[in-house]
Amino acid sequence: MKNILIIGAGRSASSLIKYLLDKSEEENLHIIVADMNKSAAEAKINNHKNASAVSLNVFDENDRREAVKNADIVISMLPARFHLEVAKDCLEFGKNMVTASYVSKEMKALDEQVKSKGLTFMNEIGLDPGVDHMSAMQVIDRIRDNGGKMLLFESFTGGLVAPESDTNLWNYKFTWNPRNVVVAGQGSASKFIQEGKYKYIPYQKLFRRTEFLNIDGYGRFEGYANRDSLKYRSVYGLDDIPTLYRGTMRKVGFSRAWNVFVQLGMTDDSYQIEDSENMTYRDFTNSFLAYHPTDSAELKLRHYLKIDQDDIVWDKLMELNLFSSKKVELKNATPAQILQKILMDSWTLEKNDKDMIVMHHKFGYEYKGEKHQIESQMVVIGDDQTYTAMAKTVGLPVAIATLKILNGNITKTGVLIPIDKKVYAPILKELEEYGITFTEKKVPFLGYNPENVS
Amino acid sequence: MKNILIIGAGRSASSLIKYLLDKSEEENLHIIVADMNKSAAEAKINNHKNASAVSLNVFDENDRREAVKNADIVISMLPARFHLEVAKDCLEFGKNMVTASYVSKEMKALDEQVKSKGLTFMNEIGLDPGVDHMSAMQVIDRIRDNGGKMLLFESFTGGLVAPESDTNLWNYKFTWNPRNVVVAGQGSASKFIQEGKYKYIPYQKLFRRTEFLNIDGYGRFEGYANRDSLKYRSVYGLDDIPTLYRGTMRKVGFSRAWNVFVQLGMTDDSYQIEDSENMTYRDFTNSFLAYHPTDSAELKLRHYLKIDQDDIVWDKLMELNLFSSKKVELKNATPAQILQKILMDSWTLEKNDKDMIVMHHKFGYEYKGEKHQIESQMVVIGDDQTYTAMAKTVGLPVAIATLKILNGNITKTGVLIPIDKKVYAPILKELEEYGITFTEKKVPFLGYNPENVS
Repeated sequence: MKNILIIGAGRSASSLIKYLLDKSEEENLHIIVADMNKSAAEAKINNHKNASAVSLNVFDENDRREAVKNADIVISMLPARFHLEVAKDCLEFGKNMVTASYVSKEMKALDEQVKSKGLTFMNEIGLDPGVDHMSAMQVIDRIRDNGGKMLLFESFTGGLVAPESDTNLWNYKFTWNPRNVVVAGQGSASKFIQEGKYKYIPYQKLFRRTEFLNIDGYGRFEGYANRDSLKYRSVYGLDDIPTLYRGTMRKVGFSRAWNVFVQLGMTDDSYQIEDSENMTYRDFTNSFLAYHPTDSAELKLRHYLKIDQDDIVWDKLMELNLFSSKKVELKNATPAQILQKILMDSWTLEKNDKDMIVMHHKFGYEYKGEKHQIESQMVVIGDDQTYTAMAKTVGLPVAIATLKILNGNITKTGVLIPIDKKVYAPILKELEEYGITFTEKKVPFLGYNPENVS
Repeated sequence: MKNILIIGAGRSASSLIKYLLDKSEEENLHIIVADMNKSAAEAKINNHKNASAVSLNVFDENDRREAVKNADIVISMLPARFHLEVAKDCLEFGKNMVTASYVSKEMKALDEQVKSKGLTFMNEIGLDPGVDHMSAMQVIDRIRDNGGKMLLFESFTGGLVAPESDTNLWNYKFTWNPRNVVVAGQGSASKFIQEGKYKYIPYQKLFRRTEFLNIDGYGRFEGYANRDSLKYRSVYGLDDIPTLYRGTMRKVGFSRAWNVFVQLGMTDDSYQIEDSENMTYRDFTNSFLAYHPTDSAELKLRHYLKIDQDDIVWDKLMELNLFSSKKVELKNATPAQILQKILMDSWTLEKNDKDMIVMHHKFGYEYKGEKHQIESQMVVIGDDQTYTAMAKTVGLPVAIATLKILNGNITKTGVLIPIDKKVYAPILKELEEYGITFTEKKVPFLGYNPENVS
């Protein structure tokens, strides 16, 4: 019997745990789900005979080391900043490890030691990062293996609400951490390259510089640029590629309305609003508008941001009760925290709502003097609020990789990400059985300079 | 003979040093000007018999302590972050001290020790902070002494080019540290209170929320909000005042054009532009615009920011050669550093140009059931590029305060700022002899809610 230790039984662990429990009989597995909150772990395993739930405080060194020591492989579903301690224990006790998080500098630094012990630490094998890497590398490798030269790579991912549960004007509900949605794009400018030209978009323009794209059967979407697209050049071996852009997907029109919050200053998480506890939603909105004794907050906002009365953006704002007399009831809150609360009133999933993950890649390349383009799309709809599209797309690749490492099908050692064909090909293949499939089609190459004007 | 040690012989020390040299005979003073760069110190004293120039590295503890020990009073004109070491030496050797900088937390913490040694550490006695404190407190104290109740305090200061040297469309040249101008307003939102309502303006809207004001004989100006107006409530004893706003002055139209740089992202100092060294000004501008093989950077910018061809904003941009083929020639530069270079090409003072300092206060108050308003204005024009308006308004209050402390006319002890009548009244009186005068007039009280609508 082989012991798999899963640390962290949060929402994104559901599909991961189910996959391993379903395989436990034929693969002779024992699954140990460890969480601070033992009942969360128990709920996930539901008295399965091949599993046990344990209470584990990851900061308790003895308990953590004991748990790692007794496992054959360790999956860390903890927040990314807690992986390192687990990784050091795995190194000490000679255990393989799997995470869905970006490789931190500290994790990367363990590479030599991990290799010298013959271990595999597989990271970035969730959705994004994870499925994006694997699905992109599969096409990129094929193009290059056939003698093509990559000219363009664009990749967009979105965590959205499924069409059947899409009941508001924003075509959006919170399907993961709302805070990350509210502060998305803040910090330094977004950076990418198009036709060899570096481009920079500051936060205050990020939601006005979207690109459009179509997902077959799901209509038109928009993408806004992620913070740093350029780091993917070295990751994917695309160092000299003239066009590289990564973005986040929303339904068309979301960003133009979201820009209202950006312009008002409501997404700011860097200072506290005075007496936020006793404010109404209307007071909060008004605090970003010029004082006037009689002009309404509504008209002031429309004038300030030049929103016509028949603009759908206005309807979107009204839908959120931005001007209502409802109390904020949050002490010493930042604008971002208050906005999050207002949005959660409207954008929280209903009991029967389903989520949706969309991913869209564009690959432009030159082959025998001619330019070509391939588009690749994935849509995954959640089953319910336990086996969400997010839980499936994050957890299943982790689960599949874990079993393949455990069974010796993945043997490469070191601190890895899934960009090798031997890793991604079998995992993508198996993901298809779970409905995580990409549809490819050839389209005319467009790029940003189809006529080669210089 | 009394020894006055001045540490730092930068541009803003000219008028300070001249004042003390001019008084040295009758007051029996010896002035020691200490600077890293001895020749800068020598140039300032110009072989005056009552002065000496010394080379001083303020990080050399022995030299610094020796210099402080031999002085009767110490003026630190160093950058604010270097005052503390000097202050500790002054404390040890029992010397009074004067600075034109904001009181830091660390400086404030010395208050008890300074008092127990019977010393005076006078700070914030330059222009802003300094002349603003004194001129405001003089009117506020008078209103309150007469039984009035303060309702409104607004204060604006600007360092600008004198009308006679105002030769560009922006009505602006750099008269102090250009970097501070380029990054002005960044960081957390600006915060103030109007009619009891807290207001917040994010950076991306700061230059579109200006207030207008007139300076008699100098036309119309605009003010944009400073970062934190609210801290002045406790400083000035205005804790319950319903309206308090502090701002920075420019000629009307500057801010609307400056907003173009903000929206493009050119004022960002947080990341480096790729290959900045080999870019042209045009490339730099283009890096903030969407890629297109044939559309010009000019048209892209006009469309992006919706600038009509006959809008004066466009002429202002053209005047700066934003689209020229001139090389940036700065390695690993941030957008803000490149913008600063471009602006310095156009906004550097010519040899015979003069600068100008403008200050405008509004005081609204209630007296016997009626509302009143006083406006107070100061305009100072520089003599030349040595005795600039900035050097006069920063240096003369420092110099006057120094002599008054030395002569026992200011006797209050502790870490102080000039908000006591005994301090500001004689200093403001003497400043009048040097053309630093305020003109007061009564105007109808307006506030932001003249009709008392609730």
